[in-house]
Amino acid sequence: LGDVHPQLALPERPLGGNDPDAAGDIDLAFLALPHGASAALGHTLAKRGVKVVDLGSDFRLDTARRYEEAYGSVHPFPGELGQWRYGLPELFDLTGATKVASPGCYPTAVLLAIAPMLRAGLVEPSGIVADCISGVSGAGRGLKEEFLFGEVAEGVRAYGVTTHRHRPEIEMALDAIAGITTTVTFTPHLVPIQRGLLATVTARLKSETDPASVLSDAYAKSPFVEVIDRPPQTRWTVGSNRAHVAAFVDRRQGVVIAQCALDNLLKGASGQALQAANLMFGFDEATGLPTSGLMP
Amino acid sequence: LGDVHPQLALPERPLGGNDPDAAGDIDLAFLALPHGASAALGHTLAKRGVKVVDLGSDFRLDTARRYEEAYGSVHPFPGELGQWRYGLPELFDLTGATKVASPGCYPTAVLLAIAPMLRAGLVEPSGIVADCISGVSGAGRGLKEEFLFGEVAEGVRAYGVTTHRHRPEIEMALDAIAGITTTVTFTPHLVPIQRGLLATVTARLKSETDPASVLSDAYAKSPFVEVIDRPPQTRWTVGSNRAHVAAFVDRRQGVVIAQCALDNLLKGASGQALQAANLMFGFDEATGLPTSGLMP
Amino acid sequence: LGDVHPQLALPERPLGGNDPDAAGDIDLAFLALPHGASAALGHTLAKRGVKVVDLGSDFRLDTARRYEEAYGSVHPFPGELGQWRYGLPELFDLTGATKVASPGCYPTAVLLAIAPMLRAGLVEPSGIVADCISGVSGAGRGLKEEFLFGEVAEGVRAYGVTTHRHRPEIEMALDAIAGITTTVTFTPHLVPIQRGLLATVTARLKSETDPASVLSDAYAKSPFVEVIDRPPQTRWTVGSNRAHVAAFVDRRQGVVIAQCALDNLLKGASGQALQAANLMFGFDEATGLPTSGLMP
Amino acid sequence: LGDVHPQLALPERPLGGNDPDAAGDIDLAFLALPHGASAALGHTLAKRGVKVVDLGSDFRLDTARRYEEAYGSVHPFPGELGQWRYGLPELFDLTGATKVASPGCYPTAVLLAIAPMLRAGLVEPSGIVADCISGVSGAGRGLKEEFLFGEVAEGVRAYGVTTHRHRPEIEMALDAIAGITTTVTFTPHLVPIQRGLLATVTARLKSETDPASVLSDAYAKSPFVEVIDRPPQTRWTVGSNRAHVAAFVDRRQGVVIAQCALDNLLKGASGQALQAANLMFGFDEATGLPTSGLMP
Repeated sequence: LGDVHPQLALPERPLGGNDPDAAGDIDLAFLALPHGASAALGHTLAKRGVKVVDLGSDFRLDTARRYEEAYGSVHPFPGELGQWRYGLPELFDLTGATKVASPGCYPTAVLLAIAPMLRAGLVEPSGIVADCISGVSGAGRGLKEEFLFGEVAEGVRAYGVTTHRHRPEIEMALDAIAGITTTVTFTPHLVPIQRGLLATVTARLKSETDPASVLSDAYAKSPFVEVIDRPPQTRWTVGSNRAHVAAFVDRRQGVVIAQCALDNLLKGASGQALQAANLMFGFDEATGLPTSGLMP
Repeated sequence: LGDVHPQLALPERPLGGNDPDAAGDIDLAFLALPHGASAALGHTLAKRGVKVVDLGSDFRLDTARRYEEAYGSVHPFPGELGQWRYGLPELFDLTGATKVASPGCYPTAVLLAIAPMLRAGLVEPSGIVADCISGVSGAGRGLKEEFLFGEVAEGVRAYGVTTHRHRPEIEMALDAIAGITTTVTFTPHLVPIQRGLLATVTARLKSETDPASVLSDAYAKSPFVEVIDRPPQTRWTVGSNRAHVAAFVDRRQGVVIAQCALDNLLKGASGQALQAANLMFGFDEATGLPTSGLMP
Repeated sequence: LGDVHPQLALPERPLGGNDPDAAGDIDLAFLALPHGASAALGHTLAKRGVKVVDLGSDFRLDTARRYEEAYGSVHPFPGELGQWRYGLPELFDLTGATKVASPGCYPTAVLLAIAPMLRAGLVEPSGIVADCISGVSGAGRGLKEEFLFGEVAEGVRAYGVTTHRHRPEIEMALDAIAGITTTVTFTPHLVPIQRGLLATVTARLKSETDPASVLSDAYAKSPFVEVIDRPPQTRWTVGSNRAHVAAFVDRRQGVVIAQCALDNLLKGASGQALQAANLMFGFDEATGLPTSGLMP
Repeated sequence: LGDVHPQLALPERPLGGNDPDAAGDIDLAFLALPHGASAALGHTLAKRGVKVVDLGSDFRLDTARRYEEAYGSVHPFPGELGQWRYGLPELFDLTGATKVASPGCYPTAVLLAIAPMLRAGLVEPSGIVADCISGVSGAGRGLKEEFLFGEVAEGVRAYGVTTHRHRPEIEMALDAIAGITTTVTFTPHLVPIQRGLLATVTARLKSETDPASVLSDAYAKSPFVEVIDRPPQTRWTVGSNRAHVAAFVDRRQGVVIAQCALDNLLKGASGQALQAANLMFGFDEATGLPTSGLMP
């Protein structure tokens, strides 16, 4: 591990493979594998009684139809779809869960920003625009030309326009929370930062209720979501499992601009997975997780 | 000049003040002054018969009412409002102009992306969402804590949410082009790059016409706007007066996502001002302006 | 505190002044004040029996003469100079210390790289060249034009060439460790990173002994200094109190190139101060300090 | 070309191969090929009477012995070594040259900083320390993990310590200029910038003559080297063919710190190659080359 991640002071920890038979007698497994690679392994482990948190996308969608639309292929275990809890603890109950599909980084931010307003009936369920901005670690450590320093530094670009697979995941979760069908235009952007993700979600208001108060009520008991009254900065969350959310209203236009900033590697990935595991085992959800960031 | 800008190989050029009487017998003046500082000077120079291109915002809006809404104060020369041409040559005719208000960087990008579709009746005039991302040079060289390296690097944030003064400017120009009243939700974001601006504009489609073909027709004769079929990257335009635009359609949702990337210091500022001046004097609009960028 | 540092999840902690009478009955004080501001306060607290760790430079030098040469002024409490322990625990004994002058970030890195070789008589004490590279947080949070994003990004520059005050501090510490007079040419450079410092120290060899083995022996019991056999990267240390050191020999030229990478805000500042405090109170020196970094 | 470099407004220019028979009747060829790939092609073209500027390293060294020491292999055309002019016009005469080996980026900067002082006998020829800092474009566009954004951003590291092949090139050129054998310790560093290179060269003085005046005399007629009296910043040269040099003296230690900043892609590569070609054809050496940079 120390060879791959010299920043970790753990030079002697060997990295093994993904053979479930070699895993021994374990209580819990975190899966952090490429798309398609965790379906069989997760299914096997779960059948053996191991609690599983899958950080991949294989078990996030709720129906075979939605999966096929998003991925263009048939799910190998369609009966499992809908059987895994969606691991966003601030919006979905994870008590007693044994199989958790941990959300994508973009869905986490978009949902934390806008879901409470949809649930409260404050905004129209269609015409939602989610423009998101992320650092390069969201794309993993793969060796691709587009992620070379010389291709990223001093540049801004969108990618996956109209086709990114986090869009069906966002709509699935919003449908579940709001109880109606939603449509979201989702456009992700890449900028030259390592960690951090900002979601800017614009929706049409259909109520006079103050969106900020709806957010404050929704997250009153959440240790990791802080509602603030100025535009969230990704810098403030990097290194912590905390998300900052805020809402701004333009009554002239009848819209709300809701924002969420988080660290895509913590609240958007590994931190949230550990938060879910804490709840699966009945621990305090904040156990072992940092609430303060490290910038500068 | 060489002391302030050591990158320029012009160490012996002294910097003077803004006294019009000291300017001598000039044909053309470019004004690049803070908000409010060019109104009187521009008015004086124009009365003397000097052609003026104002890079500031003092003469961009068309009516006293719109000015007061945007700036919260009374314009010192309200009779001048509407008398200055809006200096976006791809969308407004500058032939024979003597007084030109050069557009802001954000309006330039948003208008180049979406205005041809509004003019052609392709999209709804309301509910337009313009999320824009800019580098720090857009804010000038002022000494403010929020622009320190340690406050910008490795971060993303929005600013001026619901209140930025480029929003009324965008709506004014779109109203003029489309002949109807438009509403735009405009949210600018700051990211750690020096130069470059990307506008991502989402609008509801009301026609089956292909937006990309409308863009191609609109800019067929424009030397500085290139319509491309992949997401524009700011890197590709930095150092040139060129803008890249593209449009992506999601028929399922009935929306178009239109994008424009440009260099906020050239096509978004000084380059466009020179382009306007070329047209004011009957020169080729591309005279003296770079079409190729300098990245990497 | 939360207003100034929103990344800290401590919004309700008020920031007080520096009045020692308002400090109450305390055992330990950390002083992190501008040059010249901690001399009187540190002296007062120490006389009251409070243990003090001063992160400033007021008590680092050992004689009035050296202080005057470095700072061009008379020290207000010259009798204190030489009475404060130099707080680099890997090279100076802090057992039983009550007054500690915590080292500067550059001296920490240069000394960790080269001091064991000087102590062992491996290298010549003169003609040492220490070229160092640091991120902007080393300069604090002051509002200066030279630290604007637009002045730092995409640039490299030296500063304080031949005049930086860390040079006398380095020589003082090397003199104490080696027992002879040393001369060091010290040139610091600024690059566009937030945290991190790399020292590259070139010295003439006068022995056949392997420098790497001397480093390994010197730091065998140090939890925060790791000797590695490839060029240290600042990225590997950011977020931890750990320093990476390495030595490379060019026998053809008779030189050693010794390097040290560290986080200038932790091992180069606050982390090292806490490490010293742990030793002052007889605690394990690693108490409360991170050994793993956070990159990426 | 436009597909590979979208920043160039030349979308219709096809990229061909390197077959000299397909080149047609040409007067001049620039070769920009990997190490080892230009030897045969350059030799063939030169024999046909084509003037050649080779930006690679195949013809830079002067003897077979030096080549073998540096590259560990036998040169395919050893008779050519020493027959190509070293294309640094400020220090080597290129009048009438037909075969030019264009210098590496690091040698260009180190030589411009220190060679005039060696030629004038101001500094000792041994014990020279050249610590250099470069952006990632110096390494080309190869797809290597170490050049991913996530491996470069927010980091500093040395590479090629004691082994970099620019060291023998630097010594060869200094030997030729000074007429004696020199030894240079050369350590290159990588920092998160795209373009720009700073050389910091420390040497022992053996004369009372002012180094800055020696530099000023050496470059009095050079349009692309400017001697300045403050530390050069790479930012000031990016986008131009200009180099900034400066020298700082520490009489107490008897050393000079000489610095050179330049754009590694222009004065350190393609710009300098064009400058050489201008001289080969008897043109003004500045023809077609920018003297002003583009930052910010």
